[in-house]
Amino acid sequence: MNAEILSVGTEILLGNIVNTNAAYLSEQCALLGLSVYHQEVVGDNAGRLSEAIARALSSSDILIITGGLGPTTDDLTKETASALMGFALVEDKKAREMLEERMRAYLGNDSHRRLTANNYKQALVPEGATVLYNQNGTAPGIIMEKEGKTCILLPGPPGEMIPMFKDQVFPFLREKLPEVIVSRMVKISGIGESQVAADIDDLISAQQNPTIAPYAKTGEVHLRVTAKGRSEEECRELIAPTLGELTRRFGSFIFATDEAVTLEAAVLDMLKKRGLTLSTAESLTGGALSSRLVSVPGASQVFACGYVTYSNEAKASALGVSPDTLERFGAVSAECAREMAEGACASSGTDAAISTTGFAGPAAPSDNHPVGTVYMACAIRGKVTVREYHFKGNRNRIRESTVSHALSFLRECLLESN
Amino acid sequence: MNAEILSVGTEILLGNIVNTNAAYLSEQCALLGLSVYHQEVVGDNAGRLSEAIARALSSSDILIITGGLGPTTDDLTKETASALMGFALVEDKKAREMLEERMRAYLGNDSHRRLTANNYKQALVPEGATVLYNQNGTAPGIIMEKEGKTCILLPGPPGEMIPMFKDQVFPFLREKLPEVIVSRMVKISGIGESQVAADIDDLISAQQNPTIAPYAKTGEVHLRVTAKGRSEEECRELIAPTLGELTRRFGSFIFATDEAVTLEAAVLDMLKKRGLTLSTAESLTGGALSSRLVSVPGASQVFACGYVTYSNEAKASALGVSPDTLERFGAVSAECAREMAEGACASSGTDAAISTTGFAGPAAPSDNHPVGTVYMACAIRGKVTVREYHFKGNRNRIRESTVSHALSFLRECLLESN
Repeated sequence: MNAEILSVGTEILLGNIVNTNAAYLSEQCALLGLSVYHQEVVGDNAGRLSEAIARALSSSDILIITGGLGPTTDDLTKETASALMGFALVEDKKAREMLEERMRAYLGNDSHRRLTANNYKQALVPEGATVLYNQNGTAPGIIMEKEGKTCILLPGPPGEMIPMFKDQVFPFLREKLPEVIVSRMVKISGIGESQVAADIDDLISAQQNPTIAPYAKTGEVHLRVTAKGRSEEECRELIAPTLGELTRRFGSFIFATDEAVTLEAAVLDMLKKRGLTLSTAESLTGGALSSRLVSVPGASQVFACGYVTYSNEAKASALGVSPDTLERFGAVSAECAREMAEGACASSGTDAAISTTGFAGPAAPSDNHPVGTVYMACAIRGKVTVREYHFKGNRNRIRESTVSHALSFLRECLLESN
Repeated sequence: MNAEILSVGTEILLGNIVNTNAAYLSEQCALLGLSVYHQEVVGDNAGRLSEAIARALSSSDILIITGGLGPTTDDLTKETASALMGFALVEDKKAREMLEERMRAYLGNDSHRRLTANNYKQALVPEGATVLYNQNGTAPGIIMEKEGKTCILLPGPPGEMIPMFKDQVFPFLREKLPEVIVSRMVKISGIGESQVAADIDDLISAQQNPTIAPYAKTGEVHLRVTAKGRSEEECRELIAPTLGELTRRFGSFIFATDEAVTLEAAVLDMLKKRGLTLSTAESLTGGALSSRLVSVPGASQVFACGYVTYSNEAKASALGVSPDTLERFGAVSAECAREMAEGACASSGTDAAISTTGFAGPAAPSDNHPVGTVYMACAIRGKVTVREYHFKGNRNRIRESTVSHALSFLRECLLESN
């Protein structure tokens, strides 16, 4: 079966927002085993919207449309798609009640603002369609089915669209598909993307069922292993040997086999299990490393304190890096990185610390280190490991690479400290 | 004139990457005064690519295609577009030389890797077309013009596409357009998006030339003022009264009228001009605030040191927040925020400091503060201002809002301290 994704919104055509909805829905379709041959974007214009929907329905089994379900007269998606599919619009009682409740909560005692006819437009649904009630906004989603074609309408804001897709559309589509699809994500850090690609080249070439799809992220590679079968159990049995083979090949470079687990969460979990507390000492990353750690709920059980020592004075005063080291080796040096990590442990009283210092550019540094040179040190219960890196790209790219590799480096040191 | 944007790449249809190219090109077209009615994405498939190009050329004056210019047999964009436009492919001497030079630099002495016929495919160009030489990759871009239609082919990687567009395509299109377009960006912080929208509602309703287009970012609103005219001077004269009116309405809430200046850069610049150094003391933001400051080249002249004090112990030991304050008011309190900012100045010896403490969720806090409650304090030469905020959304959204509003808050305090 194939699907097409149509995003509606003039703000996308003006470049005001990036179309992340299409990327999310495409990945979900891939996960379901649906082929996507087209993505399209049109504005809030009846003629062009109608043309785009008609064209998509003629070439695809399933059409997923996001956006244009709002209360304004510009929002035409529901009206246009219903007319093309031959569905009349009728008021849905539950949708109206939910709308009134939400607007009451929103407007409160603001008595001069009242629900208008435009607001009530959002409670109209195609007669006989499946209504997807919206827990995060006022526009319900819609599934219309007719003559072998399925047209799914979803609200544009990702905060409404994604939960609705996850909770209501994904199960609907999985049920509808002739085969069951099961996928597992194998997340790798500490090896480059091209090395991973080379290491699984034979598996990719020979793949049939399950398939392996690599997704590269800065400092990480994710491999999605997807099987099709008649039951979940059959899929899991199909996946097992591939998972085993990937585990054999990548071993401890695999930090998670669960989609929801991030590298920072995996590292914090390792620290927690070992009973270690952590501090950070950052120069070029400026707090971006600690920020990623703190993005994990519950990080405070492990992560105690971060030092952003951007100036030499701060390196000396907050972390006790010796002026002699800064003088002789400079702030971008293995020696400075080591003293930063040791100083972070000493100042904060944590068991472990990781430090970053380097040149992110754009100005060329004064000594002979090129832009992109980074030193990191990891201290675990007094044992310090220092590593030199050379990253490419602009200032932000170098800083981003440093953060990802710092997490990966910390993970390796934790594995070795066992 | 109207333009269409076609992105080619199976990786987009699989959701492996987000189509940021289309957003960039759409914004650039808006800037040029070109109307974009469609964006489309197709995979590396000759039939579907050919159909999409033919359809786009029939309805648009200008078609901009990104992707599919690589050396592999999957890359079909140049071959397909040239055939449709009726151009024969011939080798371009300079493109071949640049290709050989780049591959030599890349392969080095790696003698068993040689340029293949596939590599040389990248030096073929449509006969009579304008060749856009690529300073950042191996695939040249192409401009083909025939019978009033213009077809522009650009490489897919943004690091190659964006410089090529900026340096070669933008000037070409501006030249081609019957009118000159000049735009200025007015960047505002400290007022919400809906308030800004309400404040300029009359200007938007009455707008003709120049136009005003609002672009919302977290904690900021950008207004792009664009004029069309016969000369740059005429455009600048058309823009001036609108810029004057916006300045009258938003005054010091405007932090930049230069597209390239970020809020963090504007704040650092204000500090530098006042001869003030800065430190940060972060709890819930975990270093994301200092990270944004450090993203500005030259930040080290002003920003000395950041403390990420996530635990109560760290707040006490690194910043000297009194145990009594933590006990009586809790870590999320105006009192704690004040002592964090004062402590950051004292510990780091800076003239100014800003602190953040709050509940980002997802777990509900133990006392009666709801998730999203944030206190910030700004200390400037001993004078401390404290403010309470209530942000909405998930953990990341609350942290992101806090960082943006912290910069805006710091800016307001600096303006008042004058």
